[in-house]
Amino acid sequence: MKKVFLSLVFTAVFLASFGQQKFQVSSPNGQVQVTLSNQERLTYSISHQENVLFQPSTLGFSLNRPEIDLTEFEVLGSEEKEVNQSWTPIYGERSKIKDHYRELRLRLQTKTQAKVQVNLVFKVYDDGVGFRYEFPEQEGFKHFIVGEELTEFKMGADHSAFWIPGDYDTNEFLYKTTRLSEVKSLAANAEEIDIAVKSPIGDNFVQTPLQLVTDSGYYIHIHEAALVNYPVMQLELDKADYTLKSHLVPDAVGNKAYLQTGTSTPWRSIIISKTPEGILASDLILNLNDPAQEEYYSWVTPQKFIGVWWEMHVGKGTWEYASGKHAANTANVKKYIDFAAKYGIEGVLVEGWNEGWEDWFGNWKEEVFDFVTPYPDYAIKELSEYARSKNVRLIMHHETSGSVTNYERRLEDALDFMVANDINTVKTGYVGKIIPRGEHHDSQWMNRHYVHVGKKAAEKKIMVVSHESSRPTGLNRTYPNMMASEAARGNEFNNAPTFGLTPEHETILAFTRLKGGPMDYTPGFFDFKLNRFDASRTTQVNTTISKQAALFVVFYSPIQMLGDLPENLEKYPDLVRFIVDIPLDWEESTYLKSAPGGQVVVARKAKENGVWYVAGISDEQAREVELDFSFLEKGKTYTVHLIQDSKDAHYDLNPTGMESKSSSVKPGQKMKVRMAQGGGFVMKISQE
Amino acid sequence: MKKVFLSLVFTAVFLASFGQQKFQVSSPNGQVQVTLSNQERLTYSISHQENVLFQPSTLGFSLNRPEIDLTEFEVLGSEEKEVNQSWTPIYGERSKIKDHYRELRLRLQTKTQAKVQVNLVFKVYDDGVGFRYEFPEQEGFKHFIVGEELTEFKMGADHSAFWIPGDYDTNEFLYKTTRLSEVKSLAANAEEIDIAVKSPIGDNFVQTPLQLVTDSGYYIHIHEAALVNYPVMQLELDKADYTLKSHLVPDAVGNKAYLQTGTSTPWRSIIISKTPEGILASDLILNLNDPAQEEYYSWVTPQKFIGVWWEMHVGKGTWEYASGKHAANTANVKKYIDFAAKYGIEGVLVEGWNEGWEDWFGNWKEEVFDFVTPYPDYAIKELSEYARSKNVRLIMHHETSGSVTNYERRLEDALDFMVANDINTVKTGYVGKIIPRGEHHDSQWMNRHYVHVGKKAAEKKIMVVSHESSRPTGLNRTYPNMMASEAARGNEFNNAPTFGLTPEHETILAFTRLKGGPMDYTPGFFDFKLNRFDASRTTQVNTTISKQAALFVVFYSPIQMLGDLPENLEKYPDLVRFIVDIPLDWEESTYLKSAPGGQVVVARKAKENGVWYVAGISDEQAREVELDFSFLEKGKTYTVHLIQDSKDAHYDLNPTGMESKSSSVKPGQKMKVRMAQGGGFVMKISQE
Repeated sequence: MKKVFLSLVFTAVFLASFGQQKFQVSSPNGQVQVTLSNQERLTYSISHQENVLFQPSTLGFSLNRPEIDLTEFEVLGSEEKEVNQSWTPIYGERSKIKDHYRELRLRLQTKTQAKVQVNLVFKVYDDGVGFRYEFPEQEGFKHFIVGEELTEFKMGADHSAFWIPGDYDTNEFLYKTTRLSEVKSLAANAEEIDIAVKSPIGDNFVQTPLQLVTDSGYYIHIHEAALVNYPVMQLELDKADYTLKSHLVPDAVGNKAYLQTGTSTPWRSIIISKTPEGILASDLILNLNDPAQEEYYSWVTPQKFIGVWWEMHVGKGTWEYASGKHAANTANVKKYIDFAAKYGIEGVLVEGWNEGWEDWFGNWKEEVFDFVTPYPDYAIKELSEYARSKNVRLIMHHETSGSVTNYERRLEDALDFMVANDINTVKTGYVGKIIPRGEHHDSQWMNRHYVHVGKKAAEKKIMVVSHESSRPTGLNRTYPNMMASEAARGNEFNNAPTFGLTPEHETILAFTRLKGGPMDYTPGFFDFKLNRFDASRTTQVNTTISKQAALFVVFYSPIQMLGDLPENLEKYPDLVRFIVDIPLDWEESTYLKSAPGGQVVVARKAKENGVWYVAGISDEQAREVELDFSFLEKGKTYTVHLIQDSKDAHYDLNPTGMESKSSSVKPGQKMKVRMAQGGGFVMKISQE
Repeated sequence: MKKVFLSLVFTAVFLASFGQQKFQVSSPNGQVQVTLSNQERLTYSISHQENVLFQPSTLGFSLNRPEIDLTEFEVLGSEEKEVNQSWTPIYGERSKIKDHYRELRLRLQTKTQAKVQVNLVFKVYDDGVGFRYEFPEQEGFKHFIVGEELTEFKMGADHSAFWIPGDYDTNEFLYKTTRLSEVKSLAANAEEIDIAVKSPIGDNFVQTPLQLVTDSGYYIHIHEAALVNYPVMQLELDKADYTLKSHLVPDAVGNKAYLQTGTSTPWRSIIISKTPEGILASDLILNLNDPAQEEYYSWVTPQKFIGVWWEMHVGKGTWEYASGKHAANTANVKKYIDFAAKYGIEGVLVEGWNEGWEDWFGNWKEEVFDFVTPYPDYAIKELSEYARSKNVRLIMHHETSGSVTNYERRLEDALDFMVANDINTVKTGYVGKIIPRGEHHDSQWMNRHYVHVGKKAAEKKIMVVSHESSRPTGLNRTYPNMMASEAARGNEFNNAPTFGLTPEHETILAFTRLKGGPMDYTPGFFDFKLNRFDASRTTQVNTTISKQAALFVVFYSPIQMLGDLPENLEKYPDLVRFIVDIPLDWEESTYLKSAPGGQVVVARKAKENGVWYVAGISDEQAREVELDFSFLEKGKTYTVHLIQDSKDAHYDLNPTGMESKSSSVKPGQKMKVRMAQGGGFVMKISQE
């Protein structure tokens, strides 16, 4: 889509490394330092400005076939280089991403009878480290089955952690904030009774992205990048010395990954910052992913959409047909299209359009949907044409119910059906136990599947938003049509019968789940008491209305849903217009004072027209934010349109308390804005 | 294809069966009698002419979900009826198949808290019994997971058995002939070191079709019919009382079958005969299968073919490209086409035509073949056109290497590629451990797959021959384009490095494997010492040349391969012409004196022109067969063209010893023909 600016600096240092047992590589500014030591075991450690953040941590693998360990190595050689380049994403938080690192590649060979060659590659950035294992093609070792990856992250201290419990099938948990010593995964897992399918691992397992904070004030973020043909890495916590150990999600027979040489693992990503904002600003995970074939994806277009979905969640309508309340009927969908057209919203998602919802969930049933048969009251062709006549497009819904074999064998037909009906975006869903039976949402086979769907969709110029998939690892850099995923507890869970989301949840998501990639969080709820259609419900959306608007800026995504019913959105036409106007692609983004479980504030400048947006969200605390407009261009005057919580706004007591005001500002001026308990603000800053 | 002649006789007897605990139903001629008794457990027993052949055997299920047993029932009602009809197969051993039985349906309900309704249906024929469980739609019970089917077959005596060891993944064993007490499954399984993937179950497990012979001279045959959405039934032998118990093949997580009400199990089939020929003549398994939609399958056409395959087996060529000996090259395949055209052979199978053979097997690798990419030296379009110009068609080869997920997601493209290249028959293969990993060749998911492929192929008017699939259960009645399968140790195993086939093997196959459906046995070898291209080989085809010809008549299949190399076939041009001339569809078939492990002799009359063929095969013994031509039409004179073993023929010492002679016969005359050790004969009897 855009040019990539490259400025490569190669500082190749060829060490005579045979026999050498210690290697060091520092980030370009020298502050992050990685030390590799090869004594009995090969270890790495990471320091920042002389502060050891990762104590010597072992590396390696246990293989199930051949049945050997890759743990004791001799170093055959090493190479070091520096790369300084930048690139332009097809969409994103900034138009130019700096990719500046020093790389150390160790060529290793096992000391055991079976001489297996493995390369260990570290990329050291000023804001962190990425490392992975490469398996070069070699004599006598080609196909192998990983029993476990033995990568450690040895913290050595009882950091504060923002975590969700380890699970092979779901990441839809509320975040916990505790010391590592207080992690209780099974209890945390058991609390969440509203998640469809759970496979807890044990009592000391957490998922990534994992946000840690040291007592000395360091923010450490552990995740992975470029997960394409490998299981998700979960982390087992050893509380004796606060070591986190990789624990890969197994397949049906207990194997972890089937690999062959000429490949590599995903990158293990570590972001290090002395400030929380440094975590939010980091592009390290994207940088560790491969570039896209830009021309091939030139048709990818950011968009906003509404959907026939929430009315089923709140009990107004149903997915299934025979209830008498079938929501996806032609007349009703036309109303959504009319609403979208009125406000310039690009897409209308329709769930429940296809046959199968009468018996779709919970029975590990393979034949559920065929993805090409609409219910009799859903005139898809007519609706698609009606939408297009109004500059709107339908968005397809493919709920697989976890029956992925069924989806794969029907995928070609399903995508062709979309093309035939002029639909170019699909929301996929994986609610249910996976078929192939014994596979998990996070196992290698499923991670291959998600990419398979992305690639097949791209062949037909179709964009994908996935739900209940494994959490992202920056892959939308490589496959830009894989626009966003859910892969966390999203706004939808406000409708869970037992308990919804806490106000702090979103402030933690920004530091954790969102570092992997855009989330289909579905903000945009303007009506918060969810018992309107079903008096038995007690849950509500724990947010102010201003915060809902703020999320469209705070949570970056190239595809964003206004989640609420049109009749609820219609009560605030100006706010809808304001939200629709928010760009989906940015020239630059700067995170202002933020903290996980506190607040997140960001200033973004639109790529298209240079308009600035600043937005913030808060947790359960009311907060005042002083904004400093020094980022504005000097000599110009700007109009600020601010939407913030009213003085008496409160996520529970008065969620709709909002005030909207306009004023002029000049660069260098300051402004105080208010965030209520569970609230937020958003402002648009245009040049006058 | 043909009309179905129906003459239904309904003798509906509605018994006031509530409270009744004993039910009897007899075959139309009264000789086979089934008694159902509902005491503590529900049991069935079977007698023939007052001789109890199946002692009271229990019935039922253990479910994994809901976690209940379906073992103790009350009888809600029963219905009995008699059906007497006949039908015409699209192809087969006879043009009109009699289907005459009495049926008893017991409507059962479990006595336990969870009241589950199950129907038990027995069809009692003069030559045996079929029974199955039906799960009617009902309140409160819909989806369920079978943990085990608890069907017993209680023999109560130490019968002689023709058996292969139980295994979840293969049926490619040589048959053993022992008493039931001497069954040693694990040892038998371990002997067969040439089978690619084996999953033995235990030491007392055998497969079906299982042929038993009682000391009183009864032939009892146990198998199943209409297996479409269920695992293969293997049998566990309890040597205490010689009870065979159903043991279903599990999936990756140990479940057996995922079902929902409105369905039924496959039929459990029992053929009973006082003569071995009665087993061979029985149509019971076909009768238990559902009829085909005849019009839909009107394009299905029996055919003979040769193949580029054996040259790879014997080391003349290779499947893979880079060897310098790639067999599937355009020039070589043209020679096969020329040979086929010269002799009027309809098809030429080409293995090794597509990319992937360099690394295709043994590593549980998912991405192997794409089924649409020929090697550079294989001009598929040109060859297909060349073949068609000579009235020959190419036959496609889809080796999946067990990676069935890969095959399913590419199936549509693969079949479309066939259509685009004017190819209407495919040989599929499943050499390797199954993916989805943890599934087995014989598990429910795979049985669904085989039918899925058959149905998808039928949509494109494609015929299927499958290898390494689960053994057939008469399904080619319902899906006639699923022409034949291997699913046993076929002629190909003569090339196994350690040991090939014994002469007796084929005489047992006729009684076991072949009762389930046509086999792609690939007879037609004229060259028996297999070290011509590879001096290290010691194996050979243990057969005489006459027997190879005889197999085309003895083993009924609508699709038959002449297995050998054209240059070997070309040495016997008259014999090739004789074989090519053998019909693939018959008006009638009569099995003459036969015995498993002895000899099999059959007389068949061609549907097209009334020409008779008689053929026989022998085991390791030399035999003389006296044929009685009383089946010929009186008042006519016939010419017999006989091909038999020469006096000094012998499967090892002189396999090519053959004599061919013509003579006249009249109805009622007799003729003695010779079968050498491991030999056979075949004759054509045409009206003068």
